[in-house]
Amino acid sequence: MFNSYKTFLSSLSALPYASTQFQDLALERQAQLTKPAGSLGRLEEITVWLSGWQQQNQLSVDKIEGLLFAGNHGVVEENVSPYPSEVTAQMVANFEAGGAAINVLTQQFGHKLRVFPIELERPTANFSKQPAMTIEETLEAINIGAKAVEKSEADLLYFGEMGIGNTTSAAAISAMVFGGTGRDWAGPGTGLSVSGVEHKASVIDKALAMHKDVVKTPFDVMRLLGGRELAAIMGAIVAARLRSIPVLLDGFVVTAAAVPLVIHGADTLDHCLSSHCSAEPGHQRLLDHLWMEPLLNLRMRLGEGSGAAVAAELVKAAVATYNDMATFQEAAVATKKS
Amino acid sequence: MFNSYKTFLSSLSALPYASTQFQDLALERQAQLTKPAGSLGRLEEITVWLSGWQQQNQLSVDKIEGLLFAGNHGVVEENVSPYPSEVTAQMVANFEAGGAAINVLTQQFGHKLRVFPIELERPTANFSKQPAMTIEETLEAINIGAKAVEKSEADLLYFGEMGIGNTTSAAAISAMVFGGTGRDWAGPGTGLSVSGVEHKASVIDKALAMHKDVVKTPFDVMRLLGGRELAAIMGAIVAARLRSIPVLLDGFVVTAAAVPLVIHGADTLDHCLSSHCSAEPGHQRLLDHLWMEPLLNLRMRLGEGSGAAVAAELVKAAVATYNDMATFQEAAVATKKS
Repeated sequence: MFNSYKTFLSSLSALPYASTQFQDLALERQAQLTKPAGSLGRLEEITVWLSGWQQQNQLSVDKIEGLLFAGNHGVVEENVSPYPSEVTAQMVANFEAGGAAINVLTQQFGHKLRVFPIELERPTANFSKQPAMTIEETLEAINIGAKAVEKSEADLLYFGEMGIGNTTSAAAISAMVFGGTGRDWAGPGTGLSVSGVEHKASVIDKALAMHKDVVKTPFDVMRLLGGRELAAIMGAIVAARLRSIPVLLDGFVVTAAAVPLVIHGADTLDHCLSSHCSAEPGHQRLLDHLWMEPLLNLRMRLGEGSGAAVAAELVKAAVATYNDMATFQEAAVATKKS
Repeated sequence: MFNSYKTFLSSLSALPYASTQFQDLALERQAQLTKPAGSLGRLEEITVWLSGWQQQNQLSVDKIEGLLFAGNHGVVEENVSPYPSEVTAQMVANFEAGGAAINVLTQQFGHKLRVFPIELERPTANFSKQPAMTIEETLEAINIGAKAVEKSEADLLYFGEMGIGNTTSAAAISAMVFGGTGRDWAGPGTGLSVSGVEHKASVIDKALAMHKDVVKTPFDVMRLLGGRELAAIMGAIVAARLRSIPVLLDGFVVTAAAVPLVIHGADTLDHCLSSHCSAEPGHQRLLDHLWMEPLLNLRMRLGEGSGAAVAAELVKAAVATYNDMATFQEAAVATKKS
């Protein structure tokens, strides 16, 4: 999909934008439906956002798909996770057997789910000592995500991740893009102790110091500090934008995988809505930097795309009311006294 | 269902409680599922709450039902709403024709919906001048709600309301039970101007002053300041508790209809979970007094049970993960390093 580092970066200058005409139409229709104007709150906002991308009078979220990427991280050798790296492959087996949270949620809500383990037997390099990936490795992973989206027939997409050690990568990316130290961005992840989080923060600080003089393009931030599943998600987000497919961002790791793109410009993520705020403390900070208000705040912190899978039901609710409610005129309901 | 004022009040002393044994079992099972402990956040809490009431190893929310009650309010003659009273009946016709938000949401999510217009042609009395209802009228309305629940086969219930003027009633009830003035509890409702809200507050203050010396049982608070749809909801909430059916509370008006019950004791609402926080400003204040944390905060303020209808999807997500996820042992996934 992207032939080189350069084609990836230049694609960011050729992104389609939302249709303000369809956004206006959506606002107009919302004012005619049988309810006080604005009384469906963020459900109405969702329909304006979707209208801008889907550019249809009737919105559609019949085909929701989750794409789940897994990778392993060399930085785990620094003891940044209470779980061993083997758990990544074990959880992928669990995904394939249908036993994980994301399987159950996609089944419950009728979403399609595809799982992409990316070279689990070949972890990235330890980014506190050297770049996490080569240019080729980064491009390959980006293209796995981009190709997955190219093949998708979904009208709404979300991305999930699994990778022991990847909240360390997410925190380091966040710090490199938005500033701050390891302590500002590191959290317990799957369940580190307080001293474990301190240690994780120091590993991130070491990485930031080492990579501080490198040119920071979206591609390079991912190459230096990312992981294969994060790179795939970044590629998937760009590919979705190129096709004008709206995206629900999941939690801390998925949001961090999107963050290098805002180096190009904040509007690069206009097609993305934050589905939920993770209990991982860096996530709220990240959302503040991105000026994103999450749809849900349920103290979830599982990853896998689980928060987005749940929030997709809110999008369904929004679309159903938008498509199917009667207008004041159709229902012969009196409007507000002047 | 309740033969008298007295049987209603004495039923509050004979309520069943949640099973702590099943709550413990739910906590134990959550720790075995293939995810870091607690990482599904409030979805896990929901399953503990439901387990206490459903008292089953496999939880069930296959039969979700919304009961929607409508009534008219004499206090509307004080000019407390920008919409005329006729809209209540017009919206009931819209509910019956399937064109309202709650119809579309229940259809989308497979919930059952029953609508109960209660003597719309006979508004309650203007409670800023006299009691809103007689003892008989209050009891009748309570029993309409209670009987609707008696006939229900639902494993999860929520209640909705429609009634021009009913946020004034909800604010007055809130002030009588928790203290404060009209200004603390009045909000724009369906869309009052700032001066309109001021006026609404003064009407509430007049009502509070007039009824201040009356004995405040749950029944009497409802009789003095309530409305038929609010009384029905209060009756429905008690009837659900008597059958140990868990309840999702909707927004400001439904929560206010539950509030007189806490005069009897805060645990009277243990079977109720707050589904969402309304944009109507009194609602957050009410939830604070009730120590309830809403599941959703989407700035919805429509009523009809719409917030609860959406939040019921979160309960489905919680139940699906609880019932169907693999355990660490089943999936052969390694647990945390000791």
